[in-house]
Amino acid sequence: MVLEDAGTGTSVTTVTEAKTRSWWGWGYAEDAVAGAERAALVERVAALLPGQDLTDHQPPDPRQLALPATRVHPPNALAGLCSDDAVDRAAHAHGKAFRDVVRNLHGELRHVPDLVVRPETEQHVIDVLDWCGRAGLAVIPYGGGSSVVGGVEPRCADYPGAVSLDLSRLDRVIEVDTVSRAARIEAGVFGPHLENQLRPHSLTLRHFPQSFEFSTLGGWLATRAGGHFATLYTHIDDLVESMRVVTPVGVSESRRLPGSGAGPSPDRVFLGSEGTLGVITEAWMRLQDRPRHKAGASVHFADYDSAVAATRAIAQAGLHPSNCRLLDAAESFLNAGVSVSGGVLILGFESADHPVEAPLARAIELCRDHGGTAAEKTGTSAEWRSSFLRMPYQRDALARVGVVVETFETACTWDRFPALHSAVMTAARNAIAEVCGVGVVTCRFTHVYPDGPAPYFGVYAAGRWGSTVAQWDEVKAAVSEAIFAQGGTITHHHAVGRDHRSWYDQQRPEPFAAALAAAKSALDPAWVLNPGVLLSNTGSPW
Amino acid sequence: MVLEDAGTGTSVTTVTEAKTRSWWGWGYAEDAVAGAERAALVERVAALLPGQDLTDHQPPDPRQLALPATRVHPPNALAGLCSDDAVDRAAHAHGKAFRDVVRNLHGELRHVPDLVVRPETEQHVIDVLDWCGRAGLAVIPYGGGSSVVGGVEPRCADYPGAVSLDLSRLDRVIEVDTVSRAARIEAGVFGPHLENQLRPHSLTLRHFPQSFEFSTLGGWLATRAGGHFATLYTHIDDLVESMRVVTPVGVSESRRLPGSGAGPSPDRVFLGSEGTLGVITEAWMRLQDRPRHKAGASVHFADYDSAVAATRAIAQAGLHPSNCRLLDAAESFLNAGVSVSGGVLILGFESADHPVEAPLARAIELCRDHGGTAAEKTGTSAEWRSSFLRMPYQRDALARVGVVVETFETACTWDRFPALHSAVMTAARNAIAEVCGVGVVTCRFTHVYPDGPAPYFGVYAAGRWGSTVAQWDEVKAAVSEAIFAQGGTITHHHAVGRDHRSWYDQQRPEPFAAALAAAKSALDPAWVLNPGVLLSNTGSPW
Repeated sequence: MVLEDAGTGTSVTTVTEAKTRSWWGWGYAEDAVAGAERAALVERVAALLPGQDLTDHQPPDPRQLALPATRVHPPNALAGLCSDDAVDRAAHAHGKAFRDVVRNLHGELRHVPDLVVRPETEQHVIDVLDWCGRAGLAVIPYGGGSSVVGGVEPRCADYPGAVSLDLSRLDRVIEVDTVSRAARIEAGVFGPHLENQLRPHSLTLRHFPQSFEFSTLGGWLATRAGGHFATLYTHIDDLVESMRVVTPVGVSESRRLPGSGAGPSPDRVFLGSEGTLGVITEAWMRLQDRPRHKAGASVHFADYDSAVAATRAIAQAGLHPSNCRLLDAAESFLNAGVSVSGGVLILGFESADHPVEAPLARAIELCRDHGGTAAEKTGTSAEWRSSFLRMPYQRDALARVGVVVETFETACTWDRFPALHSAVMTAARNAIAEVCGVGVVTCRFTHVYPDGPAPYFGVYAAGRWGSTVAQWDEVKAAVSEAIFAQGGTITHHHAVGRDHRSWYDQQRPEPFAAALAAAKSALDPAWVLNPGVLLSNTGSPW
Repeated sequence: MVLEDAGTGTSVTTVTEAKTRSWWGWGYAEDAVAGAERAALVERVAALLPGQDLTDHQPPDPRQLALPATRVHPPNALAGLCSDDAVDRAAHAHGKAFRDVVRNLHGELRHVPDLVVRPETEQHVIDVLDWCGRAGLAVIPYGGGSSVVGGVEPRCADYPGAVSLDLSRLDRVIEVDTVSRAARIEAGVFGPHLENQLRPHSLTLRHFPQSFEFSTLGGWLATRAGGHFATLYTHIDDLVESMRVVTPVGVSESRRLPGSGAGPSPDRVFLGSEGTLGVITEAWMRLQDRPRHKAGASVHFADYDSAVAATRAIAQAGLHPSNCRLLDAAESFLNAGVSVSGGVLILGFESADHPVEAPLARAIELCRDHGGTAAEKTGTSAEWRSSFLRMPYQRDALARVGVVVETFETACTWDRFPALHSAVMTAARNAIAEVCGVGVVTCRFTHVYPDGPAPYFGVYAAGRWGSTVAQWDEVKAAVSEAIFAQGGTITHHHAVGRDHRSWYDQQRPEPFAAALAAAKSALDPAWVLNPGVLLSNTGSPW
């Protein structure tokens, strides 16, 4: 297929012939960074991290891993959907964070699902929940497995077994309403297959997270994923018309409505529930016409504070750019190949209905008011975009040579951003200095709102093979403390999972936590759904 | 104060000198329809409803009402905040629906709060909840009392007493963040006083429901009110940055965040909770710069289906009009003084940053594609606007002469709108024919979304004095059944309250109802908060 605008606007050709999903790392094994790309990447990193040992470590043969034996035997009626294959179990043990990939490279798989179950119908999902509820088995809903927060890792030692519920066979667009521009879609569909099914109707969801190829609609909904649009429809939440969720006490289906005021929104309770309240099986999603008008620019700034002020002005002007990504100097240099002291603002506008030159011109004018210089349109932007889509593969290549390479993200109000940015950069640099020696921290805005940005940070630091997970965990703890102390959210679009729990537990209001636990007890009385995510297992009888 | 654009764009001058709030009807007693306005109104209605007895019925003296004696005595520490004055209690017994006003006119006040309590601090709210929780007294959070769904009426005969918790003394803008364009605002503030406090900062909330003068921020939040913007920021929900809610088990305060993906949104659980989960005391609200650029037009259509198609095209074009209100022929004639067979589309665009002629021109072009004719800009639109703000007062004047006059509203997807519109109009006309004889039904869109409109219906029907509430209840049941059967929501922005319960209970997914009841038990263990709203009192120990 040809995917227009994956992620941020570039054209990407993905193939329909079968490729092999990597069991240990990102995406397809065939697309891993290799050859000249790898040589150039390692060379750049060597310059950045002097003294780094760059020995390449091969992933282990997944058949040679000493996985714990399966403790669980499915009922006969479900046996045909279940796999206890070692590679299958290993591939479902971790998400795709740096710490997941590195642990895979070390063959360190402590928490492995006993079975991988692949339902083919909603009734299968109901049957699996019934069985697991009776047997007290943990159920880990699994979409594309691209979690970077421990969301799919069965850390449930206190349960007699754990089942990874892989929804990828529920992958159809069932119904398209071209009048209302909406479609009823099964939750296990991956991004490209979803867009392929919408294409004949000249419609698109236009939700393109970086994980687009390797994540599913249900995963996006369960984690409140952030998508293509830098403004307005930033999270998948806004594109939901109704949802169908299998809970252990019954199926919850909301009405298809363009808007409603009838009590608290049922959908908003399941959005972000990360598999703890039910298994999303279908959703009616709001779609878009395919854009016919596009315009974009890159604007260079000599001063970062001015670049931030310009971005704020655009976010507050009601211009609604589809792309409004401010890269700081380090991000511009490393991922867009541009040397500029204050950073680069990448702007994009799109419409299926009308020309977008006027809002772009106004946005550039606002940039000029803050000292920005519009650069040639295609250069930076295109380079950065292709880099964006290769980043997870490059991350894997660097993880293999012992580099500490990971991202983290937040959102805060504009008034707090300078202090948050400074505190987070300082915390990151200090932690890197202490546990890694040398390293670089980058920052970009993935989304911007009238009342604040969503900054996204990247870390590239010297690592010691065998210790890089522990090194990263120390850096992560330091930056998370800084984010929390400065009033940010522990996650804008990566979700909470298991890894953000200690900060999430402090961030959420205590009465809300009590309400959420009570809701879980009502919907999942045996507390078998994704234990440890969002909530501790205190309600569990197991 | 001068209020720009109250409701829909007109300028309204409200006075700062004290007026008297009507105890039985809408707004200020001094602003009631009288004199020439009343004569003209009655003449129009006489033509519309031949045979209607137009005797004017005076409201009773509230001091002469035989109210049930107060059963409740506050603790000494709270006594100074409490009123058992008969007029105060009578004025807090009902909301402002037609059925409320008519029952007031008849002196029929069956459910009257035992006390009206006016906290002056958040600690007072906490103390009141503590007292009522211990004593098992129902607590009815009360903002402006403009509910049209029985939301503030203490129908709690099974409780030993009921307290109306009037939050109007919590009326300050506490803090303004001009950088992020947000303000921390106490929940009891009325619309005009809120805007007056923001004006010195050149900021505005721009939330102008029809009830603007007589409703509060907390009421808007608790009921997911619909506001000024016909597209994009339709509900108050989208303008919320964080909320502070006093629950019986503690204060819930969310972080100020422009966006977040950390679990299900805590704010979205309290938005629409209608006083059943806690008492909203403060919120950080997202504000706007005051608009400097405006453009508008009225477009006439010969055919209603074409008018609907044009409105849909605009809603799906990403033009984001601030006003996009399609009046059908009856609504155009009655409230805008225009005779046109297919209806009138009132369009408005506004911006604080850039000219809006281009999107208006494009919207008009889309109308022309569907057979619309742009009319002179000011006429229809201005007439309809001033009519809009007088409607509740006119409703009261008509209620006094025994006319059945009320509104109801919903939202549905575009594909379902023709069938829903037809079924609702038929149900309304049949019910009117059966229980009233003659009458008129009008329809307008208050808000439109890419995937569907929010239609708002008006009924003017012949009534028999003494029976008009029963007559309306029959019409309302018929149209609610039609809305429900055709896939609409029982309310887009009027809330559920007590009057929409039988349809709301069917509309919401059953597992969600279980989760909501569990959340209520966790937050309000004694089930004293607004009993009967959203949920039945099955969890109540009283």
